[in-house]
Amino acid sequence: MLTEADLNALLVTDLTNIRYLTGFTGSNAALLLHAEGEAGTVFCTDGRYATQAETEVPDLEHVLQRASAAALAGRAGERPARYRRTGFESQHVSVDAFDALDDLAKGVELARAPGLTEKLRMVKDEDEVARLREACAVADRALADLVAAGGLRPGRTELEVARDLENRMLDHGAAGAAFESIVAAGAHSAVPHHRPTGSTLATGDLVKLDFGAVVEGYHSDMTRTFALGEPAAWQRDLYDLVHQAQATGCGAARPGAEVSGVDRTVRDVITEAGHGDEFAHGLGHGVGLQVHEAPSLAATGIGTLSAGMAVTVEPGVYLAGRGGVRIEDTLVVRDGTPEILTLSTKELVVV
Amino acid sequence: MLTEADLNALLVTDLTNIRYLTGFTGSNAALLLHAEGEAGTVFCTDGRYATQAETEVPDLEHVLQRASAAALAGRAGERPARYRRTGFESQHVSVDAFDALDDLAKGVELARAPGLTEKLRMVKDEDEVARLREACAVADRALADLVAAGGLRPGRTELEVARDLENRMLDHGAAGAAFESIVAAGAHSAVPHHRPTGSTLATGDLVKLDFGAVVEGYHSDMTRTFALGEPAAWQRDLYDLVHQAQATGCGAARPGAEVSGVDRTVRDVITEAGHGDEFAHGLGHGVGLQVHEAPSLAATGIGTLSAGMAVTVEPGVYLAGRGGVRIEDTLVVRDGTPEILTLSTKELVVV
Repeated sequence: MLTEADLNALLVTDLTNIRYLTGFTGSNAALLLHAEGEAGTVFCTDGRYATQAETEVPDLEHVLQRASAAALAGRAGERPARYRRTGFESQHVSVDAFDALDDLAKGVELARAPGLTEKLRMVKDEDEVARLREACAVADRALADLVAAGGLRPGRTELEVARDLENRMLDHGAAGAAFESIVAAGAHSAVPHHRPTGSTLATGDLVKLDFGAVVEGYHSDMTRTFALGEPAAWQRDLYDLVHQAQATGCGAARPGAEVSGVDRTVRDVITEAGHGDEFAHGLGHGVGLQVHEAPSLAATGIGTLSAGMAVTVEPGVYLAGRGGVRIEDTLVVRDGTPEILTLSTKELVVV
Repeated sequence: MLTEADLNALLVTDLTNIRYLTGFTGSNAALLLHAEGEAGTVFCTDGRYATQAETEVPDLEHVLQRASAAALAGRAGERPARYRRTGFESQHVSVDAFDALDDLAKGVELARAPGLTEKLRMVKDEDEVARLREACAVADRALADLVAAGGLRPGRTELEVARDLENRMLDHGAAGAAFESIVAAGAHSAVPHHRPTGSTLATGDLVKLDFGAVVEGYHSDMTRTFALGEPAAWQRDLYDLVHQAQATGCGAARPGAEVSGVDRTVRDVITEAGHGDEFAHGLGHGVGLQVHEAPSLAATGIGTLSAGMAVTVEPGVYLAGRGGVRIEDTLVVRDGTPEILTLSTKELVVV
């Protein structure tokens, strides 16, 4: 990746990128990759993580210093010929931090190099897919348990349901929730990013659950919408529309497809049904070491899908004041049809 | 704050700072403060948060746009005379983001203005202290429950204890844990930032718990170290030393004290006992809307304490391979002695 960008080296300061490149999971680190490869690459963290770094990053030279990025910029500055043109993550490094690094890397050209690691991260290898698959399985199991235990019943609060669901994910081995779980009942289901409240589930509600698990650093992301009691005709119609749109999206997620085109294909289904304005967010996003990462499956997204990309497909239609439906899978783009990782049923479940 | 910095306006893009200034709790926003005050100030978020913003930020003009910072930079660019010299948060805004903002704010001088809101945030008003006090009380209650229920017993894993403690904080009304709780037993207690594992607590262990709760956005942070079974002499000596050092630190946290001096005062106690090298982190940090915020109570910290600052005092001594002790309070600096907010006993508790 460095040679392509005409760089002698790359100073990596984003912790997720560092985790991806080295396996290090601590909260302070920097990495000075050299085009030569591992033998020329230096890793820096501070004394708190000395032991952990030996275990997690056994093959690189280590420097222990609290100001990790500064330490490695200084290192480059000591050997300007070797680090002549060194990239930095200009989409992450602040204006003030850049100045400090630039002062330390005397004689080195610090070149903007945004997104190089993020680009690599888009395509998952099979080890990464295995972790994503497990993170999705944990969410599936937790949801199945919740439903089987009658966890979606009238009178429970959204907050109680969210906590129950999160505890069940932990029971199944999640390191944590992938994000603040969304539990949205009744009119709240029409709020795309509703934060759970003390209000209670009631018969006649649509109940939208958007949640995920973290397993070995990898995130799952799934949304299912349930009917509490026999659904009204408008609820069933809304569900059927989103269900159909979501299936269309999964079918369109193939190698070579423009990400904006996948979004449009799904949006067309919803727009033709008269609800285009009520699907006011993008179709999906990449998922991996972060719950939201590249690529963006949206009208403004750029680029095409490749085999191995892990993305969500999550159309929704939200009728303000009444209720909304969203259905979301995490899937891996494969040659042919994608591998859906979130396997909970997408048929309308009446609880 | 703007007039002092010779600014006509300030573009605030850090979400915590925006929450502090406006009360907005969503995940996308920007704020263009004008020196004129509220009447001249514009708030931007996106359509997902339109309703929430009306409730949380009723008194400001609203703009709804996904690229919130860009929208407000453009707004300034439309009226360059009014926004002639506009500050931006140069410690938060990335190099790439700055370029985009600078392009949009034509005719406006975007001036580096790091830390203006962070400086205000250091001194808490009584409403903020009340939230901090409650966040600390929740942690105290959770710990008391855990101990009373025999939660710190041989055979339990660190992970089980961490989850138990976090659930008890939720039971007592926490919105969540303030950070990933540290539960470190036996030799693990000598790792300052140990992440809980599946290894079990055993008789003879020191068990270090470092955890906190979030209440209405405010964080608590507390560490207590327990002895599992009758402590060995070295464990008791280590505990007594840290206990004494921590009390010294609380006593030194007074208005006008240099933050580096408070650190030194405590470090001297530990160094004189021969363990200076085994206290390898700063003494403490500010706490509020973030669990780590200004000021830093460390050798490298700059400035003095003022009444109303909320900080932690958390010395520790870590004997590699054997065990460590840390004792930490969250406190508010007051005229005279500080108000300690974390009230769990600091005597050595044998469980």
